[in-house]
Amino acid sequence: MVTTGENLVAQREVLHFDLASYLNEKQQLVEAALDSSLSITCPKKIYEAMRYSLLAGGKRLRPILCLTTCELMGGTNEIALPTACALEMIHTMSLIHDDLPAMDNDDYRRGKLTNHKVYGEDIAILAGDGLLAYAFEYAATQTRNVAPHNLITVLARLGRTVGAAGLVGGQVLDLESEGQDDISVDTLKFIHTHKTGALLETSVVSGAILAGASEEEVQRLSQYAQNIGLAFQIVDDILDVTSTKEELGKTSGKDLRDQKVTYPSLWGLEESKRQAQNLVIGAITELIPYGAKADPLRAIANFIVTRKN
Amino acid sequence: MVTTGENLVAQREVLHFDLASYLNEKQQLVEAALDSSLSITCPKKIYEAMRYSLLAGGKRLRPILCLTTCELMGGTNEIALPTACALEMIHTMSLIHDDLPAMDNDDYRRGKLTNHKVYGEDIAILAGDGLLAYAFEYAATQTRNVAPHNLITVLARLGRTVGAAGLVGGQVLDLESEGQDDISVDTLKFIHTHKTGALLETSVVSGAILAGASEEEVQRLSQYAQNIGLAFQIVDDILDVTSTKEELGKTSGKDLRDQKVTYPSLWGLEESKRQAQNLVIGAITELIPYGAKADPLRAIANFIVTRKN
Repeated sequence: MVTTGENLVAQREVLHFDLASYLNEKQQLVEAALDSSLSITCPKKIYEAMRYSLLAGGKRLRPILCLTTCELMGGTNEIALPTACALEMIHTMSLIHDDLPAMDNDDYRRGKLTNHKVYGEDIAILAGDGLLAYAFEYAATQTRNVAPHNLITVLARLGRTVGAAGLVGGQVLDLESEGQDDISVDTLKFIHTHKTGALLETSVVSGAILAGASEEEVQRLSQYAQNIGLAFQIVDDILDVTSTKEELGKTSGKDLRDQKVTYPSLWGLEESKRQAQNLVIGAITELIPYGAKADPLRAIANFIVTRKN
Repeated sequence: MVTTGENLVAQREVLHFDLASYLNEKQQLVEAALDSSLSITCPKKIYEAMRYSLLAGGKRLRPILCLTTCELMGGTNEIALPTACALEMIHTMSLIHDDLPAMDNDDYRRGKLTNHKVYGEDIAILAGDGLLAYAFEYAATQTRNVAPHNLITVLARLGRTVGAAGLVGGQVLDLESEGQDDISVDTLKFIHTHKTGALLETSVVSGAILAGASEEEVQRLSQYAQNIGLAFQIVDDILDVTSTKEELGKTSGKDLRDQKVTYPSLWGLEESKRQAQNLVIGAITELIPYGAKADPLRAIANFIVTRKN
């Protein structure tokens, strides 16, 4: 923990805010929306596989960020919920595909067997494809009371975020970097800004765009999101070293065994924690113009560096 | 060949139309648009893999259908080209994933090694994901002079067409049916209306929607598309039996070796040809109100039953 003035201010400002209740309330909203977004029809197996991973729990951080910025910019939960669900569908799809034997070859995710361990590789690939496609269909057909050009902007951003300029590009560089011991901080940052950061940024920004935020406000929230995105990844790397499988809900210590270059392996644990904390301070600084209205975003930023899984 | 009155009319109407020149002109337009749609940036490997399959040739039937119905409904090539490219990106993505070892395990496609044989399974999965995501980004960002709500309708249809209610659902039932010898015609039709028909239908319909076609016109073109979609698949099955690998550009006789149930295996070759021909006549009947303006669609319908690969 650093003890700069900004940090003390940031800490004090969120003391009043009950983040646990806030997250819990939004999470229930998201869980209900996800559950009703996808019913099982023929062929049953694919819908079951899609639901298995989509409803496997998790923090639902991305949809919650979307709902939160939409409210901050004067919108409602209702107008943001379809996009919030789409963000979680996209996130789930990327986890299913990343876990495949041809990729990271993981057996557990969120404390449960990975999709391909339950349904087989073929169905897991198709469940990912299905969720990705459905994300666009769902946001495009279910969004109400949003200016059509704003919805198109959001759909375009969702596409960019998953593709080679986002998640896919980050995963490719991640796969290429595995087993190499001369990965630079720049490469690591590229991987993470694409693999984790891009979707978090789109989560934050899409809620604001749906609510009709100005370009300046979108830029400000982008910066907030980029900071918490990188902090999130640094903390992920830290937790992989410091947590047990039970705490993490997935295999821990895996980065070390896979000889993956991580922030702790480049910077050491203490410096990694300090960098994450500084990024969060930068994120919170962006929120000053919004006063108390931005307390949820402040608290979420702090939560990212203090979370245990 | 049947010799009903409708068929003779259909045949005569397209005699005047030079389909080869028409397809050639549109194909060049599509090839150029696809080539410029996707440039290579970092990480190079994924963009190369995406371009490898996207620019591997093929008839470009889906984008051409989109351009053709857009023109029929009074629109221009320009307003339909981004969606036309998106349709081909989606089609290419489905081919890359279907060819994977965990699915149909094919080594050749369009006379070239399949994506995973060149780039590896991990990159092939990601190249498919990247193309699917980019299809939405590209159509959403590049489409000009289209009413935003019509573009949203098209994006929603693209999503539905790929997902569990379309391509993905068809592929799941196809995988489940492999090796089973008691597949009904209904199951086979479900597979094909989802796996092949859905994307052809969306190709036809999206061009019309972009041009601002009425609901009634969209319905009429849907029916045309459903007919040629099923005819296309029946002819595909026929060609797998009657063609060589060189004619087909992919492994031939594969359905038989894989013990796949096909139309020829259910109906025999002659009856399959007759059914395909009848579907084409039905498709052409839908075009009567459009007179000579619909000659390209008539000729394309006829081409589907007479093609050699």
